[in-house]
Amino acid sequence: MAGRGEHGGAARRVTIADVAREAGVSPGAVSFALNNRPGVADATRRRVLDAAAELGWRPNHRARALSHQSSFTLGLVVARPTTTVGADPFFPAFVAGVTAALQPSEQSLTFTVVPDHDAEIETYRRFAAEKRVDGVFLTDLRVHDPRPALMAELGLPAVTLGRPDRTSSAGRVGAVSVDDSAGMREVVRTLVDAGHHRIAHVTGPAEFLHVRSRREAWEATLTAAGLAADLLVHTDFSAGEGAGATDRLLSRRVPPTAITYANDVMAMAGLAVAQRRGLAVPTDLSITGFDDVELAHYANPPLTTVRTDVAGWGTAAAHALLAAVADATARDVDLPPARMIARASVAPPTPARPRKGTS
Amino acid sequence: MAGRGEHGGAARRVTIADVAREAGVSPGAVSFALNNRPGVADATRRRVLDAAAELGWRPNHRARALSHQSSFTLGLVVARPTTTVGADPFFPAFVAGVTAALQPSEQSLTFTVVPDHDAEIETYRRFAAEKRVDGVFLTDLRVHDPRPALMAELGLPAVTLGRPDRTSSAGRVGAVSVDDSAGMREVVRTLVDAGHHRIAHVTGPAEFLHVRSRREAWEATLTAAGLAADLLVHTDFSAGEGAGATDRLLSRRVPPTAITYANDVMAMAGLAVAQRRGLAVPTDLSITGFDDVELAHYANPPLTTVRTDVAGWGTAAAHALLAAVADATARDVDLPPARMIARASVAPPTPARPRKGTS
Repeated sequence: MAGRGEHGGAARRVTIADVAREAGVSPGAVSFALNNRPGVADATRRRVLDAAAELGWRPNHRARALSHQSSFTLGLVVARPTTTVGADPFFPAFVAGVTAALQPSEQSLTFTVVPDHDAEIETYRRFAAEKRVDGVFLTDLRVHDPRPALMAELGLPAVTLGRPDRTSSAGRVGAVSVDDSAGMREVVRTLVDAGHHRIAHVTGPAEFLHVRSRREAWEATLTAAGLAADLLVHTDFSAGEGAGATDRLLSRRVPPTAITYANDVMAMAGLAVAQRRGLAVPTDLSITGFDDVELAHYANPPLTTVRTDVAGWGTAAAHALLAAVADATARDVDLPPARMIARASVAPPTPARPRKGTS
Repeated sequence: MAGRGEHGGAARRVTIADVAREAGVSPGAVSFALNNRPGVADATRRRVLDAAAELGWRPNHRARALSHQSSFTLGLVVARPTTTVGADPFFPAFVAGVTAALQPSEQSLTFTVVPDHDAEIETYRRFAAEKRVDGVFLTDLRVHDPRPALMAELGLPAVTLGRPDRTSSAGRVGAVSVDDSAGMREVVRTLVDAGHHRIAHVTGPAEFLHVRSRREAWEATLTAAGLAADLLVHTDFSAGEGAGATDRLLSRRVPPTAITYANDVMAMAGLAVAQRRGLAVPTDLSITGFDDVELAHYANPPLTTVRTDVAGWGTAAAHALLAAVADATARDVDLPPARMIARASVAPPTPARPRKGTS
């Protein structure tokens, strides 16, 4: 087996001493020149940079991290059960957007999946105590989320995805937000305009702020139209619970004529449930999703949904977090709102079905 | 804004000096005791450990990393376009499995998504030059993959997911493998036994080894049954190209009576295409997937597919990589093979359709 680092076949690492020898200066001068510190003559600095480039010198990340009091690493911790994290298309797309932003800056992303909130908190404490990361992204914001305050306590720069429900005075926590509710209002408005009176909402765990904002947009739009917002089911966001919720809604004495889902996976599972019960979508039942995963376009019928630019969100969040790490300021960034993507899963309700406004 | 680290409101960090003061010994003795080095009396060591525990002392990760010549970080670099990485349920589940294995060991995972193979190679070189990671996971193995040899050149311990097609002599690269082909053979055998003679295969890019192994399993099983393996379409694994491939196959003069897909996303897109063309699944067309994503169970009809324990794969790969980092040995680990999950998307072909063995 080959050795690594300074030993064995991979002993290619160029040191400051090599650069000094090549440039004909002292190692101290090399260090000053490479770190762009004053007191080095321009000609010397140029000679050092040329020698470093020629030899292929690269900074030692760990030594630099120690001297800079920086880990050159950002952290993303997701508290989800192993069994369901794979079903959410958000994280790979978000990570892709983050790492696209990090390419030029030599920062890395540490991505950790932990089973629950306690393990998540413990991970942040470890990150801070061991100086493993320079800052963290906070996703899946919850009602009364304790994490922004914890970041202040730990002195860990952070960026939240979406705005926390109470802005803590402490800590430099900026928010990078996409307004989910705009897309949800558009969806419900479209269903109301098509003549639907019984519009259900199937959404995720009530503790999440993005779940609340989608639910409130559904409620407010129905209320403004004089309709009852009483067909609400909370799930764990999985296909399984989305299917179960659909079954229960369609088993009601007076079922909904439209169901809005807070993600596409549940909407596609609901579509299958409706079809298996003999309902035609959209003739007998209109269905809408949220996320615009690629498969939504290829569902049968193609799914009307709400689109968010997740990779763009990741890039914007990375820029905001790098800025927070660099200058200790918290910035709030608002990205373009989520918009409805109209496809073929929405139609006016069939006149044969009851059209009374309550169930 | 609160400061961080040693400064400001978060100045909780306990130093070696604090522990020394509390224990009434020299800082040097604390360091020896905490690092479990010889030459410290048992009573002193106990006093130091008690003081450290009482004060809540934690090791400084970066200082320790420098002195240990270790970054305490493993790397995963995925070369995929930002637009499609979100469609693959593999990575979040794999990362969840990896981080489950890392919890006790204080190792982190650095996850990077880059747009192409060149950027991936550049990332490994940077990792090695800057000592950012102790080892890497190599996914999406390709035909004549240059990465195992590169790892040897860089002196970077690595574990491949699946076995490379040529075992390089150099480098400590172990393989953690799941035999995909067993599940694929089971699927094709089931279709042959049901009476299908024209069984197509829609798969991903030909350069991937797992694509090749699934394709070869399909070919070998058909050939063994005396059937032609001539209905093959390569795609980019996306729902869009899966739908397009389905359309082309079903437009043939003599279309297939069964289509096997190399992932569930394409199978579900193909299902929608078939249904939109007026075909009943499975009566007119049998369809199978690969991955067993959660939605496969909730498709209409539920999708016969092949299941791999991706999180378990991540955990096994992490253990193998930690071992490779620790003792410079390469181990090959074979996990249980992928198995068919039989659901309702497979049935015998209808007698009305042509049953000749060629198209």
